[in-house]
Amino acid sequence: MSNAHPILTRNAWEPDPSTRSFTPTNPSTGDPIPDAYPISDRATLQQLAIAGARAAESLNHTAPETIARFLETHAQLIDNRRDSIADMAHAETGLSRSPRLVEIEMDRTIDQIRQGASCVRDRSWVSARIDTRLNLRSMFEPLGGAVLTIGPNNFPLAYNAIAGGDFVAAVAARNPVIAKAHPLHPGTSRLLAQCALDASNECDLPVGSIQMFYNCDPEDGLALVRMREISAVGFTGSRSAGLALKQAADETGTPIYLELSSINPMFLLPHAVQAHTETIAEMIAESMLSASGQQCTCPGLIVLDDSNASDALIECVQDQLTNTQPQIMLSRAGVEHLHDSVSKIINHGARVLIGAKPIESSAARYAHTLLQTDANAFLDQPDAFQSEMFGVAALIVRCTHPDQFTQIARELEGNLTGTIHAEPQDEPIRESLARVLRTRIGRLIHNGVPTGVHVTPATVHGGPFPSTGHPGFTAVGLPTSIHRFAALRCYDRVEQSHLPAELRDENPTGSMLRCINGLLTHSDADEC
Amino acid sequence: MSNAHPILTRNAWEPDPSTRSFTPTNPSTGDPIPDAYPISDRATLQQLAIAGARAAESLNHTAPETIARFLETHAQLIDNRRDSIADMAHAETGLSRSPRLVEIEMDRTIDQIRQGASCVRDRSWVSARIDTRLNLRSMFEPLGGAVLTIGPNNFPLAYNAIAGGDFVAAVAARNPVIAKAHPLHPGTSRLLAQCALDASNECDLPVGSIQMFYNCDPEDGLALVRMREISAVGFTGSRSAGLALKQAADETGTPIYLELSSINPMFLLPHAVQAHTETIAEMIAESMLSASGQQCTCPGLIVLDDSNASDALIECVQDQLTNTQPQIMLSRAGVEHLHDSVSKIINHGARVLIGAKPIESSAARYAHTLLQTDANAFLDQPDAFQSEMFGVAALIVRCTHPDQFTQIARELEGNLTGTIHAEPQDEPIRESLARVLRTRIGRLIHNGVPTGVHVTPATVHGGPFPSTGHPGFTAVGLPTSIHRFAALRCYDRVEQSHLPAELRDENPTGSMLRCINGLLTHSDADEC
Repeated sequence: MSNAHPILTRNAWEPDPSTRSFTPTNPSTGDPIPDAYPISDRATLQQLAIAGARAAESLNHTAPETIARFLETHAQLIDNRRDSIADMAHAETGLSRSPRLVEIEMDRTIDQIRQGASCVRDRSWVSARIDTRLNLRSMFEPLGGAVLTIGPNNFPLAYNAIAGGDFVAAVAARNPVIAKAHPLHPGTSRLLAQCALDASNECDLPVGSIQMFYNCDPEDGLALVRMREISAVGFTGSRSAGLALKQAADETGTPIYLELSSINPMFLLPHAVQAHTETIAEMIAESMLSASGQQCTCPGLIVLDDSNASDALIECVQDQLTNTQPQIMLSRAGVEHLHDSVSKIINHGARVLIGAKPIESSAARYAHTLLQTDANAFLDQPDAFQSEMFGVAALIVRCTHPDQFTQIARELEGNLTGTIHAEPQDEPIRESLARVLRTRIGRLIHNGVPTGVHVTPATVHGGPFPSTGHPGFTAVGLPTSIHRFAALRCYDRVEQSHLPAELRDENPTGSMLRCINGLLTHSDADEC
Repeated sequence: MSNAHPILTRNAWEPDPSTRSFTPTNPSTGDPIPDAYPISDRATLQQLAIAGARAAESLNHTAPETIARFLETHAQLIDNRRDSIADMAHAETGLSRSPRLVEIEMDRTIDQIRQGASCVRDRSWVSARIDTRLNLRSMFEPLGGAVLTIGPNNFPLAYNAIAGGDFVAAVAARNPVIAKAHPLHPGTSRLLAQCALDASNECDLPVGSIQMFYNCDPEDGLALVRMREISAVGFTGSRSAGLALKQAADETGTPIYLELSSINPMFLLPHAVQAHTETIAEMIAESMLSASGQQCTCPGLIVLDDSNASDALIECVQDQLTNTQPQIMLSRAGVEHLHDSVSKIINHGARVLIGAKPIESSAARYAHTLLQTDANAFLDQPDAFQSEMFGVAALIVRCTHPDQFTQIARELEGNLTGTIHAEPQDEPIRESLARVLRTRIGRLIHNGVPTGVHVTPATVHGGPFPSTGHPGFTAVGLPTSIHRFAALRCYDRVEQSHLPAELRDENPTGSMLRCINGLLTHSDADEC
């Protein structure tokens, strides 16, 4: 046993028997942060899985009010401790403390958890359907085992495995959660886990409802995914890790929700470029720069014609990027990975406009990068030019014929977003482009930028494979994102006293929306 | 090119260039049915996929009214031709012509298609969500490519790839369909496809919207699943075929909806057995006998204690089964497969109470079968005793301790259904059993039998893996089953004229339900 921090299991911090540990690095200084965190072994992961599955049997019968109170308490504790959490997140990730961490991302995180609580209390998300004639009743219920949440490196709060969107959705559906902290911000995760632990104790959640470990060997992680105690997995991160996890989950028929790579294509049509050259350039530069380009919705592919106006627009983006100091990236490994991706695109024949190299310093920084190629080259090797560059880096593609906008869209892999800038005179190119682009992306943006995801019921943060693992779901937006972690179940001629409250004749809240004999209503079933 | 029947593609019957064909057999006589059907090769399947994907681009923009009229016309043509279709289905499957085929299954099939049309016209199924403040709007839309539907052998009408539930759901979501007919009833599928073709011509569906082929080599089928033109797959059939298809679909991130094996466990608790010995026995025998036991919801595992009442119940089931003449099964191959499954369970140590052998005759028949083992043996090798016996055959498990009911439930794989017979005095066994059983099945039945699936919005015909491929969906029940074949998509700051009608401010039907600024309403968005 090492002197590493304990892991969270069975409603307490318990020492991890592993003798292996890791220490995070401050990406702003390159210095180690003096805290050791365990690398859990397979036996430990198995114990978490078993404790989670045991908790599931109790959580299935825990009152929604308890779950809602847990989420609200968790949110309140995070709010109370926002300064110390933001300090830690800044040290571990290099992301700007203010406004990014302590305000914007913190507020979003707290708001998401509170929205989750409100969905739990409202109960309408379960889509209760009652047929009184046949006494046939159905709804979404917890899955039956534990949900494994695996958060990414780039949102230490809003996507954190023990406080972010997947966590909220999984808990709202009343599943136990086994969170895997991201090893680039274990301390942040530890502070958030403390909030979750304090909240779960205050609300008497069943033992094992909320657990967290910090790291494991990849093959042990895959073994965990395959364990029968794991009912679903939520993952946001790299494509390679995501696809390995997907393969493991697919083998055992375990639902897995992935948020993988996305290059977020932007199509700037000729009249829009002409009319709003500088405005569009400034929007793009700002979007590319947000969080040092380390967001899944940052623009990575910009398609426009080869007019003088387009030259001017590119020059303006270039100026904005070169006049801005490269910010700290999440890690040196991220800088190296970005350089590899950029180099690959260059090797395929793209020309460097600016950047394309790491910056020599103790901090993790990369020069802002713009590459350029032409539509014919892109269309010759569409796959080669679509690898994600995770940082401030984009590939510009120049079209010499209006049909090429649509042709490029036709070659696109699945993406989270796609953006079109168009003026009325850009019809019918816009229409033909939109028809093709529409089915290749989750969110279509007009005359805007892809960054900036709002947590509202109308949001879809999803898209076709390989941007996610399933086109029918969203990772952001409540109550929709909860359905990922729920099972549809049916009760056939089950008497009232043995039904879940949501399916009894009496409306359990008086205000929950249910579909009774085909009609949505707040009424009791025996009044329908 | 052979003299085989043509395949349905590009809105016409076209000869299949394959030189290979097959001929179905009448299972009642063992004689061949003198019709040859092509075994399509990979190039042909590729052409279907390309035509389907091309149709998708038009269907994305086809009015819901056109789709609804197509479905209604299809239903009406089937209704008009019900006698000839039922004749053919009886000849090909041996299922009883009346009432099963010409009334019960035909009515269900026609009703399902009409329900689909009504959902399309109503539009509420798209779950439109509008945030007017952010101008962010989302809904379920067609997937973008073709849906491959693969129907099973046992429901030649209601699950037919070109008329059944998957077909209706895929078309209702406005996807093109490539149907693979089941090779045990190609003629039935041909007649149904003629209805679909006539309907699609009458309603001017885009070319390639509805296609059908009859058969292919398994590896070519897997290649088809992997083609990028295929956006989703719906499959009902054997576990081995389904898992092979799942693996192919998983490789390419293609959503696949499977309905695989299910043994539909029934737990008969002591006081229920005591109080209703004969009634329960008769219900079980009738449920086992329906469609010669060839239904995915037939009872295959019956768990009860070792009391005298249980002995009497078993004897009564046994009598009912032996006093009934074994009916024609779907095929001789099915008889052999059933015998293999029965033999495997016997080899694991189960005792034969009755049957367990094929009946010598020109028709495909199998002796009604009951096997028995005890709870300890089951708990020793739970996987071995859970293989499906597709026919009139069930395994009885006798418990000597009340805890064994729950212990057995804990070892169950995912099933479509689970049934509990209990009297008030059977608490708390019932409660502990139900808690565990609940998460292992899709539909929980009290004091009834698992056969008899109603097509209502409250139905869930689904369940955890391996009974299906995903616990969050249902194959039966509208509009819920449509969501399997739809993608969630979002419009971010898109102007009114470029939005789908369902997301514009004005309610497109005046009555469609939409979620506007968090509230479900029939109103226009600018009134909210």
